[in-house]
Amino acid sequence: MKHFEVIKTDAASRARICRLETAHGAVHTPVFMPVATQGTVKAVSQADLKAIGTECILTNTYHLYLRPGLAVLEKFGGLHNFMAHQGPILTDSGGYQVYSLSKLRKITDNGVHFTSHIDGSPHFFTPERVIDYQARIGSDIRTCLDVCVENPAEHAAARDALTKTKAWAERSKRHFAAAARREGAKRPLLFGIIQGATFPDLRREAALHMAEKVDPDGFAVGGLSVGETKKQMHEMLSVVTEALPKDRPVYFMGLGSPEDIWEAVELGADMFDCVLPTRNARNGQALTSRGRFYVKNAPYKMDETPLDPDCDCYTCKNYSRAYLSHLFKARELLMNQLISIHNLRFLMNQTLIMREAIKNGDFQARKKEFQRLYFSGGGNFKKN
Amino acid sequence: MKHFEVIKTDAASRARICRLETAHGAVHTPVFMPVATQGTVKAVSQADLKAIGTECILTNTYHLYLRPGLAVLEKFGGLHNFMAHQGPILTDSGGYQVYSLSKLRKITDNGVHFTSHIDGSPHFFTPERVIDYQARIGSDIRTCLDVCVENPAEHAAARDALTKTKAWAERSKRHFAAAARREGAKRPLLFGIIQGATFPDLRREAALHMAEKVDPDGFAVGGLSVGETKKQMHEMLSVVTEALPKDRPVYFMGLGSPEDIWEAVELGADMFDCVLPTRNARNGQALTSRGRFYVKNAPYKMDETPLDPDCDCYTCKNYSRAYLSHLFKARELLMNQLISIHNLRFLMNQTLIMREAIKNGDFQARKKEFQRLYFSGGGNFKKN
Repeated sequence: MKHFEVIKTDAASRARICRLETAHGAVHTPVFMPVATQGTVKAVSQADLKAIGTECILTNTYHLYLRPGLAVLEKFGGLHNFMAHQGPILTDSGGYQVYSLSKLRKITDNGVHFTSHIDGSPHFFTPERVIDYQARIGSDIRTCLDVCVENPAEHAAARDALTKTKAWAERSKRHFAAAARREGAKRPLLFGIIQGATFPDLRREAALHMAEKVDPDGFAVGGLSVGETKKQMHEMLSVVTEALPKDRPVYFMGLGSPEDIWEAVELGADMFDCVLPTRNARNGQALTSRGRFYVKNAPYKMDETPLDPDCDCYTCKNYSRAYLSHLFKARELLMNQLISIHNLRFLMNQTLIMREAIKNGDFQARKKEFQRLYFSGGGNFKKN
Repeated sequence: MKHFEVIKTDAASRARICRLETAHGAVHTPVFMPVATQGTVKAVSQADLKAIGTECILTNTYHLYLRPGLAVLEKFGGLHNFMAHQGPILTDSGGYQVYSLSKLRKITDNGVHFTSHIDGSPHFFTPERVIDYQARIGSDIRTCLDVCVENPAEHAAARDALTKTKAWAERSKRHFAAAARREGAKRPLLFGIIQGATFPDLRREAALHMAEKVDPDGFAVGGLSVGETKKQMHEMLSVVTEALPKDRPVYFMGLGSPEDIWEAVELGADMFDCVLPTRNARNGQALTSRGRFYVKNAPYKMDETPLDPDCDCYTCKNYSRAYLSHLFKARELLMNQLISIHNLRFLMNQTLIMREAIKNGDFQARKKEFQRLYFSGGGNFKKN
């Protein structure tokens, strides 16, 4: 397919480097996409995102639909202008938010009734409407409305949700194809979401159905990293990437810890998003090459070294652990910004290391090197 | 005096442009100094401060002494390194914070006993200790410990506070002179604080005493902008600037609204600081050439124009009122950063306009022009 190119695949695993073309520029994979839930990556400006090297960000149809509302975004000619983001934007369809945030969710064959988590007002999403909403948002990569189930799920419940998710994906594709033709040269991309909980048979069925009956521009793997074991997560991802054609990107939804991303890339996933780097930052937790740590911990009060001596981000080039520890204790807003910048750049650097490793044919060695240092708890970092 | 040069004084008023030299670079006046109470300008990074054009910032001896503590700053070789600020830093002596933040304040001839607003622990400041603390902070411009009184104050109470403030200023200067000699070529500057509440006789006495008996490197005017009328404020400032020699800078403590700064510059003040631009930003209030307004107000929900169409700041060049309104309603942290940047740049631009006006000999005309637009409530801005 024209919009996607596999540049190189690792000889010993499914890890690969690829290039995805969108209407707002290229996405080089493996890639971590910062999350802009409400049309902003929390506490991080566009200038900082650019300095971090961010290409694609993720945002949520559910949230933007409720606030500021699609009429506002349309007035601006789309979310890109509204939030001043010039690169690609991927929108989640809202299936997960309806499941996790709404107090009331009633699913019919036609769509899902839910109430707003903001004011309790009633709303109704259908696969077609959600495609239309994403067109009004103007995102570059759009996703099909899906049905999420709790973890752990019974096989029957997961099967029922998958049956709806499959039907909705087909409807989404039909509606998208008609609308996308109208958008002409700036044609957006559609990703289908593969569900199936922790059941290999359902995951395989979902992947094959998506590839054969829906035929989207990319595959999103949903419903993982929601509390299942790592073993289950890896098994499900492996079943899916084995079943899928290799000519399209695989997006692992909601994965954000560096150790998990290394594993998932090895198993064939290309794209990732998660609130982890920015949410942990607001709790004073930094991701570093030597593991995670909390800046509030006592040893850092006098520590003149940067968060991560190996990092090239704005925060590490200008500020010390002691300063960030002080900001945490003094409840200063600047901490959110500085650690968010670091955590996002840290994940960006991890994906750059992965790309280089795949290119050089030493992915396994670099992964082991990452793990050795990350789990060492070495230096004067305290294990948390 | 070598460290200070009056470049030009307005023919029709006391407004003037000057240059103050410090160990960390020059300060061009009129100047507004962003406040970094706890060693950070709230929600604004050093990169953003630099882009705003900030030369000098203000921080508080009282706050830094309590947290992170002077031992931490000394480990870093001073506050500049700790907070990554390369320009000049002015420290307030703590007299005002002891008055306004501590639940317990007991003043003796020797100094002031108070309890920490953080943990209630007891502390004792003397004029000499506060000079030493500021040396450990490493600030470029230091101030004498003073005694603040409530507003309105009785003449007897204001007289008593002034008597102590005068004696403490003399002690501060003696102690500072001895210590400053040790700092050699990087000699810091000492500013004396002029008190006297709203009594012209006390203000005049305080100014003459400061100039003749203390002879500091600059004059700070304290105890104003604390609830007195504008008329009183202007009268007190005028009494002070009339009594003072013209060869040193005049720093009006705690003034931050643009309309007040225009008046105070006309009356001979050169330097200003206030939490207003950053505090108001966190409440969603923007300072603009057309007046103040709250971004949450309904008309801005769909407004594509920047906060201030005349502004050249990062926020105004990239984001709309509608976006900032959305951030406010969605309680997004990025709002604090973006409006703080704008408000600080707005005040910076006001001082640049003032300098240009004084240079061109049309200060009165430019002041009237500012007032006409600022108080017009025009455009689609709502009066608040």
